[in-house]
Amino acid sequence: MKTLKQIFLILMVVSVFSCKETTLVEKIVPETITEIRNDIEKVEPPNWWIGFKNQDVQLLVKHPNIGKATAKISYAGVSLKKSHQADSPNYLFLDVVISETAKAGQFNITFQLEDGSELLQTYELKSREKSAEDYIGFDSSDAIYLITPDRFANANPDNDEVEGLLQQGIDRTDDYARHGGDIQGIIENLDYIEDLGFTTVWPCPVLINDMPSGSYHGYAMTDFYKVDPRFGTIDEYKELADDLRSRNMKLIMDQVANHCGLYHWWMEDLPFNDWVNDQENYEENIDNWDWKVTKTSNHRRTTNQDPYTSKIDNKEMADGWFVSSMPDLNQRNPFMANYIIQNSIWWVETLGLGGIRQDTYPYPDKAFMSNWAGAIMNEYPNFSIVGEEWSYNPLLIGYWQDGKKNKDGYDSNLKSTMDFAMQKHIVDALNEEESWDQGLVKMYEGLANDFAYTSPKGIMAFLDNHDKSRVFTEFNGDVTNTKMALSYLLMLPRIPQIYYGTEILMDDFDNPGDHGLIRTDFPGGWQGDTVNTFTGEGLTADQKDMQSYLKKLLNYRKNSKAIHAGKTIHFAPQDGIYILARIGGNETVVHIINKNENPLELDLERFEELELNGKTLKNIISDETLIWNSSITLDEKGSVILTTKIN
Amino acid sequence: MKTLKQIFLILMVVSVFSCKETTLVEKIVPETITEIRNDIEKVEPPNWWIGFKNQDVQLLVKHPNIGKATAKISYAGVSLKKSHQADSPNYLFLDVVISETAKAGQFNITFQLEDGSELLQTYELKSREKSAEDYIGFDSSDAIYLITPDRFANANPDNDEVEGLLQQGIDRTDDYARHGGDIQGIIENLDYIEDLGFTTVWPCPVLINDMPSGSYHGYAMTDFYKVDPRFGTIDEYKELADDLRSRNMKLIMDQVANHCGLYHWWMEDLPFNDWVNDQENYEENIDNWDWKVTKTSNHRRTTNQDPYTSKIDNKEMADGWFVSSMPDLNQRNPFMANYIIQNSIWWVETLGLGGIRQDTYPYPDKAFMSNWAGAIMNEYPNFSIVGEEWSYNPLLIGYWQDGKKNKDGYDSNLKSTMDFAMQKHIVDALNEEESWDQGLVKMYEGLANDFAYTSPKGIMAFLDNHDKSRVFTEFNGDVTNTKMALSYLLMLPRIPQIYYGTEILMDDFDNPGDHGLIRTDFPGGWQGDTVNTFTGEGLTADQKDMQSYLKKLLNYRKNSKAIHAGKTIHFAPQDGIYILARIGGNETVVHIINKNENPLELDLERFEELELNGKTLKNIISDETLIWNSSITLDEKGSVILTTKIN
Repeated sequence: MKTLKQIFLILMVVSVFSCKETTLVEKIVPETITEIRNDIEKVEPPNWWIGFKNQDVQLLVKHPNIGKATAKISYAGVSLKKSHQADSPNYLFLDVVISETAKAGQFNITFQLEDGSELLQTYELKSREKSAEDYIGFDSSDAIYLITPDRFANANPDNDEVEGLLQQGIDRTDDYARHGGDIQGIIENLDYIEDLGFTTVWPCPVLINDMPSGSYHGYAMTDFYKVDPRFGTIDEYKELADDLRSRNMKLIMDQVANHCGLYHWWMEDLPFNDWVNDQENYEENIDNWDWKVTKTSNHRRTTNQDPYTSKIDNKEMADGWFVSSMPDLNQRNPFMANYIIQNSIWWVETLGLGGIRQDTYPYPDKAFMSNWAGAIMNEYPNFSIVGEEWSYNPLLIGYWQDGKKNKDGYDSNLKSTMDFAMQKHIVDALNEEESWDQGLVKMYEGLANDFAYTSPKGIMAFLDNHDKSRVFTEFNGDVTNTKMALSYLLMLPRIPQIYYGTEILMDDFDNPGDHGLIRTDFPGGWQGDTVNTFTGEGLTADQKDMQSYLKKLLNYRKNSKAIHAGKTIHFAPQDGIYILARIGGNETVVHIINKNENPLELDLERFEELELNGKTLKNIISDETLIWNSSITLDEKGSVILTTKIN
Repeated sequence: MKTLKQIFLILMVVSVFSCKETTLVEKIVPETITEIRNDIEKVEPPNWWIGFKNQDVQLLVKHPNIGKATAKISYAGVSLKKSHQADSPNYLFLDVVISETAKAGQFNITFQLEDGSELLQTYELKSREKSAEDYIGFDSSDAIYLITPDRFANANPDNDEVEGLLQQGIDRTDDYARHGGDIQGIIENLDYIEDLGFTTVWPCPVLINDMPSGSYHGYAMTDFYKVDPRFGTIDEYKELADDLRSRNMKLIMDQVANHCGLYHWWMEDLPFNDWVNDQENYEENIDNWDWKVTKTSNHRRTTNQDPYTSKIDNKEMADGWFVSSMPDLNQRNPFMANYIIQNSIWWVETLGLGGIRQDTYPYPDKAFMSNWAGAIMNEYPNFSIVGEEWSYNPLLIGYWQDGKKNKDGYDSNLKSTMDFAMQKHIVDALNEEESWDQGLVKMYEGLANDFAYTSPKGIMAFLDNHDKSRVFTEFNGDVTNTKMALSYLLMLPRIPQIYYGTEILMDDFDNPGDHGLIRTDFPGGWQGDTVNTFTGEGLTADQKDMQSYLKKLLNYRKNSKAIHAGKTIHFAPQDGIYILARIGGNETVVHIINKNENPLELDLERFEELELNGKTLKNIISDETLIWNSSITLDEKGSVILTTKIN
């Protein structure tokens, strides 16, 4: 029986269907449903869809003594292929096949228990709201704004404290406590983000971390299907996605396949004996739990590639817990593997995502990760996933990128990796004095390594993030260096990512590299903040200047085909000057880094192949124009960005 | 007309022919020769061979006004396909085809000059002394002793001073003067080298460097077909090769395709206007030559790989002179290309080489270098060539190795590259204090990079060479570190190369990195030396100990299939201990690096996968045996090398 409201909602959904061969009537009148019942404690994924390429879905059913129950489904086009008991009596896994003829709708799954009682669970198959091809992932035409949600803006103080959660209260004086930022805080400031010139938002995870401490960062998830109520609701998460989409912007979801939080609901009753790694040790010690008991990863990430790795190092790397508060999921358990893949797809489909950022990429089972990314890309061919491998070694960065012809045959299916190497090159290049092998040559030779990448422009580049010291701190408070680094980053054949607050020179000088401090509150995000980044109130001249600088760069980049996908040419640094050009169609963008403090005339003869002689170029920052002739004057240290696109 | 001696020599050669289908009579009675004449100033290559896969040879003929002469050859199986005039009137290039039916022997080339006169040049085609497959190049079963010939041993003081050469005299007090070492000095000390356990000798170039200064190092060749008379004669060079071969050892020739010496004979009359790069500038300034005029290379070697390199950087890299005293050969001139390839093959065939070391590999035209290596490997399928790319970037090391699937399609045909990266990893690893990302982890993660190489064991590894500070200096005089570095080097899946004098801890403390000082005289190589490395006289206890240490290691390695080609397993460093094992057949070699000064018990449980439990192992250095059980005692800082091969 449906309420009017339910029917109205289904009509709303149907109205945006792209699916053409089904009729409205078929959809709103499910075939077999008799009554809506939710007898079962937990069924995951909580719903599924028709129309996926992969017609299999495996439901995790959790309920006291459900393991020996007989399940039945009677719904046209849907069949229950197999039931699997788990090691715990309280789980049942159902292999469901959704054929091409299945229609969207609700149906009941019947569970006949050993004691003769029967339980009913209503399950919904939804229609997909857009076609698979329309899930367009982020790419080099985008610029990504990375946000730590707890620290960006607290639009809804009502959700700061939520009853029943293990960690209570907010304390803005404690860098490791929760500060109250929320999804609504991001939604309400999308104008600001869009105006700055960003096209994509990557918030760190907003799923629930019901942990006794350190829950603010989001990486210790205790339920993979639930938004943390202190961040908001799933409807707000959807609103964020919808709002971004309406702006032609993208939302990246930060996902974690490697681990969960120690207080994840399943840790009290694990379905299988190998659901998490080091499980035996965990279960032996759970009653007098001492975190030190946990076997943490050896963190020797090269064991993934090392042809000589010992088995024990490899196992300790993959199976050790990331930290003692984060149980390591065992993706070699096929039910776990399905669970993670389906969870990812559920979120892509539910939110209409523009990308996934996958945490700690080298830590889960690497064969699984290839399957995971492959499964998602199979459903969403134009989607993007970026994996986090924190390595300064370009060999590793390249190894993980889709299509790399690795000697061990590994193909990751992963479109994007992270360029920690370039981050270091840029910081070193600008901090160091110039010499034969120091200074700008680091950026120049670092970029030359692109020959080893399958798709350099598919790699995400950045100057800092939520785990790394703020770039302004890395430059010891040097505004000019920070500007040069940013302008270079935005000219690269890469997907640039900028961490919130970089536009106002946020820093962690007091304790460089300290995680809590890196993730400082964004001024203006809290009622009563005396400084307000959104309005400009209370910002210093340097901060305002940087905000405006970044805005100009990003807004130029937004429409620059040359930067998105053009050809790249650069010239070996000489005399403290390093020139990089991006060329596409009629547009040439010339990026000049000049380390010289005093004015100089730069002879342009060496750059003849750019074919700019006699052309008028505009300075993207100052809007001034000049004619490219025999030389140009460089007034001071800094970067100069010139474009042939003068209107 | 042949003298008896000539016929005797031919008989000698014929007696070792491996070629079966020709008869003795055919060989010693050339078909068309009427008289032996050498009217022509220069014909290069000075002889050639029958039986190459490539039947073409291009002769460079240099003689006053030879350019317009008509050349003729009348010899069965040999034809003159084409004559090419050069830009200079004094050169003629002859394309000669040697068919399969051609027999070894001498014939005359007739030159009809414009003035009607006729010149005759007798040219010899030799039979090949061994089959192509029998030119076995160095590989990971070898250990290479690198020698700077001027600084190793002066066996023949009579050739110290040679009349007519630009640089006269020897001065052992001047590190950049000649010191008198010679080929004979190497020959006479082969017992010493073999006894140490080396299987291969790589002397730096011994071809003539008739330069006014700095001629001792050998890299500024002024004639590619002539041995420097201060080093000896071509017969001595052959004797060195033969002597090594008789010991089942190999000779590597150090060749240079990138440049010649400024006083090379052709610099006074260059055959083509593009024979060397920057030639126009050179010819304009030759009369009032100022070395500063020369355009030297920008030395930005990454332009070879950089997908974004500007054309000008690429050109300046490849076409600039290596240094102003070394004209840059233009391998894009097809006559130069042939000249270099033929010169290399001539030396391989003449000496029966066991390998080529090619200098400054990234500097010549890279397409040519692929052709060059390809041409040699085509004739000698089991040969080895190692190219010098001085880079700490494994991406570049890997790029140059044969078979690498490079994105730009480049395939080098080069079997071996040089592992500068590993050299730095080893030195850093042992010099640094242990921490998460410092110390032994550098060796461990450095070796893990092998996943990116086509054939890691085909790569040459070393601790120092003639261009790098002595390893004992790099370790600040720490004998233990030097020993650990050496033992690790010799256990690696690599071709190890050791620089002469490392066995007696030679150093360059007085001016670290100074080329002249690095190449210090080997004590005992000169009459009257108070210290004699060959006899041990005057060596310190540390020196004797190192000599004996290296001898034990090398002689073990010589017969260790596990080290030559076995499987490699290593264990992530923990608590200052790093274990690497090599396993092949019934032999397991365990290499333990221990940085701890105080005795400790090492628990062996972690190394279970080595399957050594209960086995007896012998310490390669002390000859003591132990049983591999639950733990072993490590008495002091240093490396321990254990083997299951106890007899």
